[in-house]
Amino acid sequence: MHKTDVAIIGAGPVGLFAVFQCGMLRLSCHVIDALDHIGGQCTALYPEKPIYDIPAYPEIMAADLIEKLRQQAAPFHPTYHLGQQVKGLQRTADGYWQLQTSRGVEIMAKTVLIAAGCGAFGPNRPPLDGIEAYEGKSVFYMVQQREAMRGKKIAIAGGGDSALDWAINLSDLAAKIYMIHRRDKFRGAPESVAKLNQLAAVGKIELVTPYQLSRLVGDGGQLRQVGVATMDGQERLLDADVLLPFFGLSMELGPIADWGLQLDHKLIAVDAATCQTNQPGIFAIGDIAHYAGKLKLILCGFAEAAMAAHAAYKIIHPDVALHFEYSTTKGAPGSQAA
Amino acid sequence: MHKTDVAIIGAGPVGLFAVFQCGMLRLSCHVIDALDHIGGQCTALYPEKPIYDIPAYPEIMAADLIEKLRQQAAPFHPTYHLGQQVKGLQRTADGYWQLQTSRGVEIMAKTVLIAAGCGAFGPNRPPLDGIEAYEGKSVFYMVQQREAMRGKKIAIAGGGDSALDWAINLSDLAAKIYMIHRRDKFRGAPESVAKLNQLAAVGKIELVTPYQLSRLVGDGGQLRQVGVATMDGQERLLDADVLLPFFGLSMELGPIADWGLQLDHKLIAVDAATCQTNQPGIFAIGDIAHYAGKLKLILCGFAEAAMAAHAAYKIIHPDVALHFEYSTTKGAPGSQAA
Repeated sequence: MHKTDVAIIGAGPVGLFAVFQCGMLRLSCHVIDALDHIGGQCTALYPEKPIYDIPAYPEIMAADLIEKLRQQAAPFHPTYHLGQQVKGLQRTADGYWQLQTSRGVEIMAKTVLIAAGCGAFGPNRPPLDGIEAYEGKSVFYMVQQREAMRGKKIAIAGGGDSALDWAINLSDLAAKIYMIHRRDKFRGAPESVAKLNQLAAVGKIELVTPYQLSRLVGDGGQLRQVGVATMDGQERLLDADVLLPFFGLSMELGPIADWGLQLDHKLIAVDAATCQTNQPGIFAIGDIAHYAGKLKLILCGFAEAAMAAHAAYKIIHPDVALHFEYSTTKGAPGSQAA
Repeated sequence: MHKTDVAIIGAGPVGLFAVFQCGMLRLSCHVIDALDHIGGQCTALYPEKPIYDIPAYPEIMAADLIEKLRQQAAPFHPTYHLGQQVKGLQRTADGYWQLQTSRGVEIMAKTVLIAAGCGAFGPNRPPLDGIEAYEGKSVFYMVQQREAMRGKKIAIAGGGDSALDWAINLSDLAAKIYMIHRRDKFRGAPESVAKLNQLAAVGKIELVTPYQLSRLVGDGGQLRQVGVATMDGQERLLDADVLLPFFGLSMELGPIADWGLQLDHKLIAVDAATCQTNQPGIFAIGDIAHYAGKLKLILCGFAEAAMAAHAAYKIIHPDVALHFEYSTTKGAPGSQAA
């Protein structure tokens, strides 16, 4: 059982900067994230993409942004609880918020900052009857062990980089690869598309286009065939042991939706002056927070982190006036004169 | 006569980032600043001081922050009008705001962003009767030409770095230097204090402590003597041609106070959702703006710049829906799937 001033839900850029802002006010932080690494989408979705609108960075790669924010937070020694979701959140009799994670970690926090981006994000699942029975057995939304795919007949569905990359990556160990896409044209990196067509030309990959997934055939969670159909209903059955659908990630609030927070279009409504939700001591910042004039920009999330940290301070130390100083105040020549 | 989408008053960090944000929305900008360089206080007061709370910069020198912001704004080709104050601001019949600067530049702007920090800042003047008559003739708050001090009997007042630096700097060309301070201890950099004491020991500088300025003696703007007094009223008269008071800078709104803007404790009151003032099309951002929950942090000014730019866009292009995109949207793998 941990005790802390602030529990921060979400270790994306805004959650990380909240650690720094809380640290500057000498508030201790525990940070929980469903992903097994810090950085949120920046790390999970586009680590090598340049971002252009971080102030004073004409260009920065998402992964570098996260590393800088990690360094900035590090002097305050946050405790990270990664690879686990916050499942439960209750108010205790002595005024704490008690959090339970999916790995059984319990945290008693005086305040909670929800910096969960667009919420927990999971794979977009194709709308196929009975797909749940196959998930984790022969339908996978990510490949965790490449070796487990050796000798399999694999149906890969999707037209983006993930689908392309895995089709290419698995082509030398799979018994068969079907590449299913609803168009003839793939949307991945040009060099990946060229490589795919090359592998298709030599028979390593069978392109199944323009087809969409139509049904699954199998039993006990084990696929035998994957049905695909054209737009006008022509069906084909592909012999396959494994289906890997790569249709991107969807965002959903997950357990956060059950905490009695006032929502506004699937986002958490907050007071613009403090980022506090309708629950006292619970704040929301970054993309998950909504108020009049809200812009979903990382840089606005940074400012919200500062506002929430200051408001949390007043809750944690109700009797202490916050003597607020610029980080440079002590050093500014203007303050030294006479 | 210039025409522009946005006139930005103030070329400090927040004004510079506003250029970038406006540029991202394809709004053209003219930037006016009273100082003769960009960067505001960061450049004028503490260029070499480290700042610790710029997001994703564990530490950055103020001058480097300004250079990065200048680079980030540069692709949008802002026009800078430096070394001049905005003296007049009027609404025109066709819905523009018309600005006049102290150097006679005229700008017609669809919107105005006031990012003037703490306003125009000027020197703190010692409260001496009749000092105005000497200012610019024999009393100077900054030394613009070192050579003009050659052979003079100079009284320097103040205990900080500016006073120390000039006493040391001028000691080899002045006929006499008095160093007047109300305490025995100086507050400048230790090596400067050591150097001062060394120069005092060899008779290059006369330390006049603990004394405060009490009066000026002279006529036609030309000083002959500077009166100084101890706390218990013991007076001395120093033969001096020049007085250099270094008591830091004071902040004042200047002409901005006359533009019909609603003020709140010497700051400009704005709508937190847009940063718009009570005058339509005039926005205030950064330290000069006030709303509920406002924190005077550069990073909050950055977020305000983004909000004001988006709100200005709606005024400039009332009929165009703003299709808002993350800087990374096109590249995010999640947006490419299937």
